Amino acid sequence: MSFWYDETFEDKIRFGIKSRTLLSKQSEFQKIDILDTDLFGRTLALDEKYMTSEKDEFYYHEMLVHPPMTTAKRIERALVIGGGDGGAVRELLRYPEVKKVVMVEIDGQVIEACRELLPAIGTAWNDPRLEVIVGDGVDYAKNALVEPFDVVLLDGCDPIGPAEGLFNIDFYKGCRRLLGEGGVFALQSESPVVFLETFLKILKNLKSIFKTVHPYFGPVPIYITGSWSWTYATDSAHPFIIDEKRMSRIEKTCKYYNRDIHRAAFALPTYIRKAIDQIS
Amino acid sequence: MSFWYDETFEDKIRFGIKSRTLLSKQSEFQKIDILDTDLFGRTLALDEKYMTSEKDEFYYHEMLVHPPMTTAKRIERALVIGGGDGGAVRELLRYPEVKKVVMVEIDGQVIEACRELLPAIGTAWNDPRLEVIVGDGVDYAKNALVEPFDVVLLDGCDPIGPAEGLFNIDFYKGCRRLLGEGGVFALQSESPVVFLETFLKILKNLKSIFKTVHPYFGPVPIYITGSWSWTYATDSAHPFIIDEKRMSRIEKTCKYYNRDIHRAAFALPTYIRKAIDQIS
Repeated sequence: MSFWYDETFEDKIRFGIKSRTLLSKQSEFQKIDILDTDLFGRTLALDEKYMTSEKDEFYYHEMLVHPPMTTAKRIERALVIGGGDGGAVRELLRYPEVKKVVMVEIDGQVIEACRELLPAIGTAWNDPRLEVIVGDGVDYAKNALVEPFDVVLLDGCDPIGPAEGLFNIDFYKGCRRLLGEGGVFALQSESPVVFLETFLKILKNLKSIFKTVHPYFGPVPIYITGSWSWTYATDSAHPFIIDEKRMSRIEKTCKYYNRDIHRAAFALPTYIRKAIDQIS
Repeated sequence: MSFWYDETFEDKIRFGIKSRTLLSKQSEFQKIDILDTDLFGRTLALDEKYMTSEKDEFYYHEMLVHPPMTTAKRIERALVIGGGDGGAVRELLRYPEVKKVVMVEIDGQVIEACRELLPAIGTAWNDPRLEVIVGDGVDYAKNALVEPFDVVLLDGCDPIGPAEGLFNIDFYKGCRRLLGEGGVFALQSESPVVFLETFLKILKNLKSIFKTVHPYFGPVPIYITGSWSWTYATDSAHPFIIDEKRMSRIEKTCKYYNRDIHRAAFALPTYIRKAIDQIS
């Protein structure tokens, strides 16, 4: 039975995909839906917000992962907080330089559902370099006693529900604590169209902690209004100082990302530049 | 009475804005709806496809108009085919160098409805440099006996219904015929996400006529899946050879467009570059 599965924003706009339910369950943290759709293939929604789909996931995962990975000083150790669909760790593990990827996902049932029903996204679950921890990313960032990471990624939901703690200053301080010299922290930072205030708040918080903070932009077709932002934060790297060897290898494997897109993504629309100037 | 006004693509996805009807009529050519909405202000839809809104129109109109206008050899004379909402001619008329803008819009009732109900978009209707012709753009491109234009813009609907003739080779030949030396033709060339085949067909047709053809990309939040393309076609200009004086003036007036966005918009996502290579 096909039906319109709609993501609604403030009862003002909605985006719907004609769907058939493959799985619908309530975990300890959130409602998990995995849908089969004609246009986007199998699709994950959490608390009725679209997270990722087989057909469009490359936009989001490539843009979260590769700008930090082509510019961090080293990339031996990477951490993903969230990311239970497995797309971000898959992109990280494409780099032969990577020796260890740790994923800290709070909801084990998301991982379980995605491993079973979205195997086309999570193709690297069995990579021996991957360690999956089912646990609280906020706690991990604050307290984990581990070797420093070269790249830390926050691949979380919107800052409501279980992801709320993932967007505040204390959490960002924890992420900075985990980074080694030349390391980069990157995160999804919401839609600059419908969540401009949230985007600006994230940026302001990051700027209070990191020396260099640059938002970047790209399309994610299944996200509400279709354009999204990520933010790159570092104390000792730069988004335009690219490791040529890594770039020339990784851009061959990507569907969206390449060196031109990398540069282009950091271009600031004028209204965003003005809004950032006001918070700085 | 608020209701969900949904634009549907192939019964597979839909985008809806909570709306109140300000005007709904059938013209000789199409169904015209003007809606009042909370998130996007007043919004125009033709045949139940969203065209433009007060709050997001700047993305589309700035990106249609300014890449050609900052790079054409001269910009004294400009032509808009379609564009009945008045947004494109408004952006053209911001340039003091412009002496004449001709708009050829097939549906006089669209102009009438927009002049009455979308005055915030069409702010330049009374500019003495503007000549509005209610007529067939295909016929105009083929037959009009006029001085050459420096910039020709196609601001049309999707290639179905009244806009169908605006996407074929004969029409593009007509547009080329109207261009003077150093002139630029630019048009909206559909979503590279859901209309990839149409986008490629437009590109292929343009490449058979013009020496230089470059698609470019940007967000349009109310268009289905939110990212859109335009294409720049010319025989004797180049999108990266920018007139500095025009750019430094015009970028001050824009909400989205600026020199960084200009360059960035031409970056090709890898899957699009590969698809273009296959048609070339």
